[in-house]
Amino acid sequence: MRTSKPIAGRHLGWSEGDVRTRPYARFWRPRMAPLAEHVRLALDEGPLAEPLLAPLSHASEMFAGDGVENGFALTADRGMRIAVSTEMPDVTPAMIDWWFGWHSDSPERYKMWHPNAHVHAMWRRPPPAGSRGRARYLGRTSIVDEFIGSGLLRLAISFIHPHELGLSDATLRDDMKATAICAHSTLAGLPIRAGYLVHLVQARPGGSLMRSRFWIGGANVAANNLLAAPIAAIARRELNATEADARALLVHCAQEMSHLASFLPELYDEFKDVN
Amino acid sequence: MRTSKPIAGRHLGWSEGDVRTRPYARFWRPRMAPLAEHVRLALDEGPLAEPLLAPLSHASEMFAGDGVENGFALTADRGMRIAVSTEMPDVTPAMIDWWFGWHSDSPERYKMWHPNAHVHAMWRRPPPAGSRGRARYLGRTSIVDEFIGSGLLRLAISFIHPHELGLSDATLRDDMKATAICAHSTLAGLPIRAGYLVHLVQARPGGSLMRSRFWIGGANVAANNLLAAPIAAIARRELNATEADARALLVHCAQEMSHLASFLPELYDEFKDVN
Repeated sequence: MRTSKPIAGRHLGWSEGDVRTRPYARFWRPRMAPLAEHVRLALDEGPLAEPLLAPLSHASEMFAGDGVENGFALTADRGMRIAVSTEMPDVTPAMIDWWFGWHSDSPERYKMWHPNAHVHAMWRRPPPAGSRGRARYLGRTSIVDEFIGSGLLRLAISFIHPHELGLSDATLRDDMKATAICAHSTLAGLPIRAGYLVHLVQARPGGSLMRSRFWIGGANVAANNLLAAPIAAIARRELNATEADARALLVHCAQEMSHLASFLPELYDEFKDVN
Repeated sequence: MRTSKPIAGRHLGWSEGDVRTRPYARFWRPRMAPLAEHVRLALDEGPLAEPLLAPLSHASEMFAGDGVENGFALTADRGMRIAVSTEMPDVTPAMIDWWFGWHSDSPERYKMWHPNAHVHAMWRRPPPAGSRGRARYLGRTSIVDEFIGSGLLRLAISFIHPHELGLSDATLRDDMKATAICAHSTLAGLPIRAGYLVHLVQARPGGSLMRSRFWIGGANVAANNLLAAPIAAIARRELNATEADARALLVHCAQEMSHLASFLPELYDEFKDVN
């Protein structure tokens, strides 16, 4: 995993000043729960056969009824695919849409999400004043510094419409019974996409289930523009996702999403009308 | 991990003759307990962000109230830092001081500590006759052969005063409520230190808690003498602590320390006045 140098002044954790003054400071909770048992089981079972996790071109198959909900595969083209699910009691899909529009307004918000790994976030261009719900993140890019395992990554995460990944309207319902956060991710400083992600969130009795999927490296590496095509070709050859990378990303996602679920219902209740 | 060749005649386990004749043979217990749940969780959570584990220059921060008690990080300078804690029922800090002075007098004693990994130990120079407690190990070097994971290492472990690592007197109390075993470790045959360790042992109701910390590789590599400075510079560049190394050392420490705790109170009771 490529490790970035920390930028001066960027650090893990909130400053004492922020803890005293941020209006949402009571939701800064640096202690995180242990990994869920179903995540530990997936880690113990280790790398899976590539065909068990559908490629990006068939992303919707990742959500078929009998698919892998928790696990990872290293692919023959030296990429990786990851599936991980998070129980989110009392969370609604609308809360998740709100969170994705809200979290990149300040580094402190982003750090609430994974206190032990999130270092910095900002929008490349802030959302238009007055935008709400999905409109606050769709088409926007969040520039983040975060540790995945012990590696510090600087990523540009660009949120895209689920249709771009072939997800049907059933995954993005206006009745608010489901939403799908979709994005591609660029290694900061390089004009190439390293991979794609989907967080499909479906309401069910007592809350929601988030089903996260990642497609990283290999055929998922794509040029951001025509001039970058030769660099993408090189990156596709040279990037080499390891089992350690897959484990670290699976753990990171499981941790941040279950931590988010632990405070989101209350946070949303208090701040849903404030940006 | 550098693997040494076994020296002829050195082997895992006690000989039948030793099992028959050693006065402390009833404490040779080759069956070890399974890993503790908190250790398994740390392994499942995998590598942590470097800032969560303080560097050697701030060793005392590793014992701050809200720090990581179990986990490991790979550092940007290609070293590793490890934290692991061991519950030690019925053990006192004084017993640990006694053990560190006693265990290197014969290979059989050392093998009791980790029957599945410890191959050989001897003092470079034996402690002075009549020395007791901390005086038996402080300033001494134990030359050990041990497996860490599947790698056989030959190490010179030199015990140093906690003050050398900036640990305050609070960690080495004359009221015997705490002790701190501190050492640096040299790869045998090389004039350079590969890293440092602390086992801080604090009494609490029902026994003690041992809090072990390791700083290996990267900036922790140091020349043992002026002539070795160029070799240390090369080693600092060439040594590369891997995730597998960190996992193996964390597991080894958790196993040997919980195994030690399983027999130390009785062993101490019977042999504390015998060297």
